[in-house]
Amino acid sequence: MIPVKGLPGVREGDDLAALIAGRTELEDGDVVVVAHKVVSKAEGRVARLDDVEPSPRARDLAGGEDPRRLEVILGESARLVRARPPLVIAETRHGFVCASAGVDASNAPEAGTVVLLPEDPDGSAVRLRERLRELTGCEVAVIVSDSFGRPWRQGTTDVAIGCAGLEPLLDLHGKRDAAGYELRATAIAVADELAGAAELVRGKLDGIPVAVVRGFATQGDGNAHELVMPAERDLFR
Amino acid sequence: MIPVKGLPGVREGDDLAALIAGRTELEDGDVVVVAHKVVSKAEGRVARLDDVEPSPRARDLAGGEDPRRLEVILGESARLVRARPPLVIAETRHGFVCASAGVDASNAPEAGTVVLLPEDPDGSAVRLRERLRELTGCEVAVIVSDSFGRPWRQGTTDVAIGCAGLEPLLDLHGKRDAAGYELRATAIAVADELAGAAELVRGKLDGIPVAVVRGFATQGDGNAHELVMPAERDLFR
Repeated sequence: MIPVKGLPGVREGDDLAALIAGRTELEDGDVVVVAHKVVSKAEGRVARLDDVEPSPRARDLAGGEDPRRLEVILGESARLVRARPPLVIAETRHGFVCASAGVDASNAPEAGTVVLLPEDPDGSAVRLRERLRELTGCEVAVIVSDSFGRPWRQGTTDVAIGCAGLEPLLDLHGKRDAAGYELRATAIAVADELAGAAELVRGKLDGIPVAVVRGFATQGDGNAHELVMPAERDLFR
Repeated sequence: MIPVKGLPGVREGDDLAALIAGRTELEDGDVVVVAHKVVSKAEGRVARLDDVEPSPRARDLAGGEDPRRLEVILGESARLVRARPPLVIAETRHGFVCASAGVDASNAPEAGTVVLLPEDPDGSAVRLRERLRELTGCEVAVIVSDSFGRPWRQGTTDVAIGCAGLEPLLDLHGKRDAAGYELRATAIAVADELAGAAELVRGKLDGIPVAVVRGFATQGDGNAHELVMPAERDLFR
């Protein structure tokens, strides 16, 4: 687990892969875990609250806080899952269920702005991976991560909202233990575990948005959309 | 991340700490992550299905599978959260919400038995930690882990169901980023991220139930009960 230190503040249009490649020595097989915040900033996925006109619904949900932020959240939401103003748990257009539909004011580029999730985090991961290959010649995997809460538990853990160059689910379906019993957990969300592991060395307050996981035997190539539970199998809709 | 290899099959009454200490060189500050399965086996938390008389409710929930297993699950449950026979998501007496109340037939000691969660996983972690100190002189932290699903997402990640010698939540409440914004995620479940990271090197099929995380700056001393969302703050009850 290697934190990538010394990254500057990222702005729209920055070549994030070049910023990363210039600050760490990558190797084939590395998993580069990038906090979505810097991906979103590089992609210009930032909203300026002064440009936002809050709807009546946003005012209802604001619970005394800035209704313009709630308006941005509604714009990012496919549906609201829970609301206790000003707290909103929403499903994003990508299918992720998370607080504030991923809209966040912390580590925003400037006062009065909020950072959104990337439009297509899997696409962001693919592009970062290709650009890192171009710059370093290395075949790496890329995970774009965010901090999600977990129902019934306290505290967030980082999960993968985008990935490229690895299979995010290790499928154990039909696999058996040494005694021949079929395993209960039929798939392990290794991309989520990798994102969480990287968070441990990044540190939210230290402003280290990128870490490299070395030595994990990545397999295949998938995308983080596979981590979204299909509606028909979802017991929690 | 160091997998502890060569552990024998664990039986009731085994000195699990001695089995671990004999197979790895621990250092002060290490986090020893132990899959609950071996803790439960050492503590005799195993049910024999032949000893179980299924209730009518267990038969209803079994959906064609062995109703005795459902009876064991009901016995471990404080309440059912979701049921789609034979799949049951339940809250355990500890307050954990997980599939089958943690009851699992895979890697059980023998055919016709199922493994339960430890009676008191935090207590198990404390005892393991003290015994490891006695045997090695090292001050380590211990996490007892299990694989939990996550609503709306596919795949399990390992989480902490017991811990000792570290604070499971890194509390960021009121902390601010470089620009002065209060952080959205007010606490990070580092114990869950450590459990997930350890899972990556353990490998479910390889039968490696223990891994050591070295170099994580553990702080304080808490228990995994802190990771359970209090009912009054819980949006998902």
